[in-house]
Amino acid sequence: MFITFEGPDGSGKSTQVPLLAEYLRQQGFDVLTTREPGGTRIGDQVRAILMDMENTAMRPNTEILLFLAARAQHVAEIIRPHLEKGGLVLCDRFGDSTLAYQGYGHQVDLGILRQMLRFATGGLQPDLTLLLDVDVETGLQRRRRGGDEWNRLDASELAFHRRVREGYLEMAAAEPQRWRVVDASRPVEVVQSAIRAAVSAALPAPR
Amino acid sequence: MFITFEGPDGSGKSTQVPLLAEYLRQQGFDVLTTREPGGTRIGDQVRAILMDMENTAMRPNTEILLFLAARAQHVAEIIRPHLEKGGLVLCDRFGDSTLAYQGYGHQVDLGILRQMLRFATGGLQPDLTLLLDVDVETGLQRRRRGGDEWNRLDASELAFHRRVREGYLEMAAAEPQRWRVVDASRPVEVVQSAIRAAVSAALPAPR
Repeated sequence: MFITFEGPDGSGKSTQVPLLAEYLRQQGFDVLTTREPGGTRIGDQVRAILMDMENTAMRPNTEILLFLAARAQHVAEIIRPHLEKGGLVLCDRFGDSTLAYQGYGHQVDLGILRQMLRFATGGLQPDLTLLLDVDVETGLQRRRRGGDEWNRLDASELAFHRRVREGYLEMAAAEPQRWRVVDASRPVEVVQSAIRAAVSAALPAPR
Repeated sequence: MFITFEGPDGSGKSTQVPLLAEYLRQQGFDVLTTREPGGTRIGDQVRAILMDMENTAMRPNTEILLFLAARAQHVAEIIRPHLEKGGLVLCDRFGDSTLAYQGYGHQVDLGILRQMLRFATGGLQPDLTLLLDVDVETGLQRRRRGGDEWNRLDASELAFHRRVREGYLEMAAAEPQRWRVVDASRPVEVVQSAIRAAVSAALPAPR
């Protein structure tokens, strides 16, 4: 079973995923938690290009293709092997992040993004996707690390983050059998309970 | 004007392109010759990943996406700016190589390859494509550098190179207004004359 976590930075994914993993391991599941680039050698090399501050000339299309290359490797080398041996994979962000941020946010054509995602992942789709939903202002304030990031956000950036959130909610509404929307503005324990309830309802019995 | 050169390694592209460039410069054209990754910083970084001998785990889809990322950057940073200032670009291999090698050769779906190419290049198409055509055996023998490469090629590799050649010829036949097929088994000067004739017929008057 392949479970992905989506939502903005600041929605609590990196806190919630390990708590869920611990719970599922106690239930006897063979759980792998991962996020891109997933610790593959090639993914790390691609990430270094994406993070290189001197690569100011990088074009949006180049960036998307590099993300997809890292994802292709992550799926083939890490995610699929664990699924194929019967394990449970919890992944912090997956293809829906590309659709939300590049598609809805930066307004790259969703049709071509979906086709390229299918190519990169070999058609792998999550069985369950948890959207940790917070309103844009809450998410941005949580990300603030004592700096003035919040003050520096201009109107176009706010509009971008609003499109991303709307995109997530639209995808969730379009495919309700796969998505569960969790109100992530609540305390950590309350959010974790909601996540466990959603996952338990979808899970097969542990071996 | 954007002119690309296609054909197998060993067909003489790297000999013919500079000879044509010299001829066109004498005619007053502002000529840029290039090949991927085109000397962009990002393209060179991507190339280093592709060439890294320790990356044995690289999947075919990852490889294609990395090639496309390098191409996206090459187009945006090198090719388009030269075309936009009215220059002439001669490029040793372009999108048709992806279709010939990955599509026809490795039998990756041509439809998705074409769509990803369009995404990577922003829809840039060559005005003229010269196919330096040689039969598979001649091309492979020319590539041999005193080693035993030829002897080591097995039947499946020969079949691969035959599919690549057939793919090139099929694309040329399907789009005759863009492609010119040049018999590259002939001496260098004869091939160069044929190339110059094809290019001159397609060129606007020099400035």
